[in-house]
Amino acid sequence: MAVGEDTLPELASVAGVRLGVASAGIKSPGRQDLVLVELCAGATVAAVFTRNAFCAAPVTVARRHLAESDPRLLLINTGNANAGTGEQGIADALECCRSLAEIAKLLPQQILPFSTGVIGEPLPVARICQALPVALQQLSSSAWGDAAQGILTTDTRPKGASRRVSLPQGEVTVTGIAKGAGMIKPNMATMLAYVATDAALEQPVLQQLLRSSVERSFNRITIDGDTSTNDSALLIASGQSGVALTTDDPGWQDFADAVTEVFIELAHAIVKDGEGASKFVALEVTGGANEQECLSVGYTVAESPLVKTALFASDANWGRILAAVGRAGVAELDVDRVRIWINQVLVAENGARARSYSEEQGVVAMSPEQIHIVIDLDRGSHSDTVWTTDLSHDYIRINAEYRT
Amino acid sequence: MAVGEDTLPELASVAGVRLGVASAGIKSPGRQDLVLVELCAGATVAAVFTRNAFCAAPVTVARRHLAESDPRLLLINTGNANAGTGEQGIADALECCRSLAEIAKLLPQQILPFSTGVIGEPLPVARICQALPVALQQLSSSAWGDAAQGILTTDTRPKGASRRVSLPQGEVTVTGIAKGAGMIKPNMATMLAYVATDAALEQPVLQQLLRSSVERSFNRITIDGDTSTNDSALLIASGQSGVALTTDDPGWQDFADAVTEVFIELAHAIVKDGEGASKFVALEVTGGANEQECLSVGYTVAESPLVKTALFASDANWGRILAAVGRAGVAELDVDRVRIWINQVLVAENGARARSYSEEQGVVAMSPEQIHIVIDLDRGSHSDTVWTTDLSHDYIRINAEYRT
Repeated sequence: MAVGEDTLPELASVAGVRLGVASAGIKSPGRQDLVLVELCAGATVAAVFTRNAFCAAPVTVARRHLAESDPRLLLINTGNANAGTGEQGIADALECCRSLAEIAKLLPQQILPFSTGVIGEPLPVARICQALPVALQQLSSSAWGDAAQGILTTDTRPKGASRRVSLPQGEVTVTGIAKGAGMIKPNMATMLAYVATDAALEQPVLQQLLRSSVERSFNRITIDGDTSTNDSALLIASGQSGVALTTDDPGWQDFADAVTEVFIELAHAIVKDGEGASKFVALEVTGGANEQECLSVGYTVAESPLVKTALFASDANWGRILAAVGRAGVAELDVDRVRIWINQVLVAENGARARSYSEEQGVVAMSPEQIHIVIDLDRGSHSDTVWTTDLSHDYIRINAEYRT
Repeated sequence: MAVGEDTLPELASVAGVRLGVASAGIKSPGRQDLVLVELCAGATVAAVFTRNAFCAAPVTVARRHLAESDPRLLLINTGNANAGTGEQGIADALECCRSLAEIAKLLPQQILPFSTGVIGEPLPVARICQALPVALQQLSSSAWGDAAQGILTTDTRPKGASRRVSLPQGEVTVTGIAKGAGMIKPNMATMLAYVATDAALEQPVLQQLLRSSVERSFNRITIDGDTSTNDSALLIASGQSGVALTTDDPGWQDFADAVTEVFIELAHAIVKDGEGASKFVALEVTGGANEQECLSVGYTVAESPLVKTALFASDANWGRILAAVGRAGVAELDVDRVRIWINQVLVAENGARARSYSEEQGVVAMSPEQIHIVIDLDRGSHSDTVWTTDLSHDYIRINAEYRT
């Protein structure tokens, strides 16, 4: 199950970035499970990684290599997360980087490794290394769609987004791909995202832009509240458009908005493809005293199994939403001021069912695939939005029966 | 589905406490849905209530009455939670108290109301009041089992526990009943618990004993992480045994242990009857630097949908447990020191699968209904245990399809 259209939008090439895919037979024979992303010399890279203390071996190695050198190749495999693999996992990730560096005539530190797939199995290093020459041969600036397909695990559809922005300084492109269908998959791991632009940006500016974009996209989604061991998101600036940007430039805001839009579109695509998802739900919390309490309420409601099962049942169960708001830990919440709308129908006010509300309205409000819930706390001027899915029989099936 | 035996243990009478049930037809005609608990004059009462900001009307009224007077009657209805009912809910709860006070020749403040059942529907006050005379006539010291049955909602079995303790000062009895099968039921609310002893205790001592017992029982269980709007737990001391106890008495610890045991037995009974439960899981976190981090790890693992679906599948998925430990927010956790046992089988060590572990061991370890998971953080001397269930198809069915 998944929500909305499943066609990959057209993904514009980004000068200075080439992608190549190959089949290493990591988990399924013949599957294109290896992806290389080549960055031109002089490209700057910003990265954020999972906050899970049990981070996977490739995350540890990628962090280390980023600190030591400017990356020139990203080496991504699906089918095996190289997580929960201890010291051997680190050695395996390093070995893949060394092997690729040798044939690409780079330093191992110029390679960033990424893995996604089964947790706790040793990485099949030899099979990956054997497939590297083919992946290198395949490098092409127009292979974004193939790469989007190549990094998937149990995702049901590829995920990509692209923008072209006309700035006073010239035209630039922003294109990205992502994968992920649960915060952690059935014995599988990972959300991965790679976004590139041909604009030229200093690394600190790029890192700040990545952080703010992730904060408004991947850090605002939850499928099951579980954080992966492998989560990684990269923002690459090749500079090949010749358009150099600083935060003081007149075109900056348009550019930054385009980057953030690409991230949000990718994040939404992950939620829509969430494990067992039959609804795409935006939870907007308004009237908060600060951002933190808006997020607490948003996440508590979004992760409540009772709210999620009600969404699956298309049941406008305002009582469960209200009860989740009540346990979100908002200090001195005046429950009589809270109001809740579902797809613009006022369902709760004054700590009770809204006077104007009827069950018939609730049925209509809950019937679309896309649900917009607004929770107004009426105690301040802050607001925030998180996105989530419902909790369905398919989620249980996918996650309970995967190994059978 | 439910775990373990479903026979109610023998519940000893507590001198000074009588119980009566009647049928008010609140939700299902003929169902014994009204319970009275009468306390003798001079009984002391301790109470704790939900921390949910959206607490139900009876919780508000019971808190107020407790502050004003010594309770003589508890009025408990099932089938309607009187939650999410705003000002009218308060008026309805007060009206029931007034009506009962009139026929029992008490003050309204001497009545504590409790409700459990559907959220957001008006309380059928007239039907409840009509059934009060029958419930009063039925009052009997041996009706604990009937009362245990009478307070249920979607629970599949009654829950009770009883202890007799021989102390230097004489023999005392502790008997309790409880209800609850999800922290919030499908459109229903509530965990309720009533425990009584014939010992005599000062109210502050009783309140402290209740708090410490609840902290080790009801505050250590989670089914779906949702906190009810109606949760209430009472500890009553009738004093009718003639045994007066203070914390300095030689028999104090035996008595306090017996009370805590009754609470833990009731809490376990709630988990075993958890919505859709097929496993009863004890999560013991050892080697913590403090109690808080043990609880954070315990609850993060216990509430992880991925861990819970693996438990349902009897899958010894140490990778999901490890990933949940990693996101529990323990500062500077050294993941290489963490070890995990499932029913005494070491499954993970050094951030990876345990060297000694085999899939065959995992299958054996996960096959019983009762699962004991030990997570050793190896960074301190604190430990704590939380109890939970798995996440099954039946949970989704019960919570998604309840209204269809």
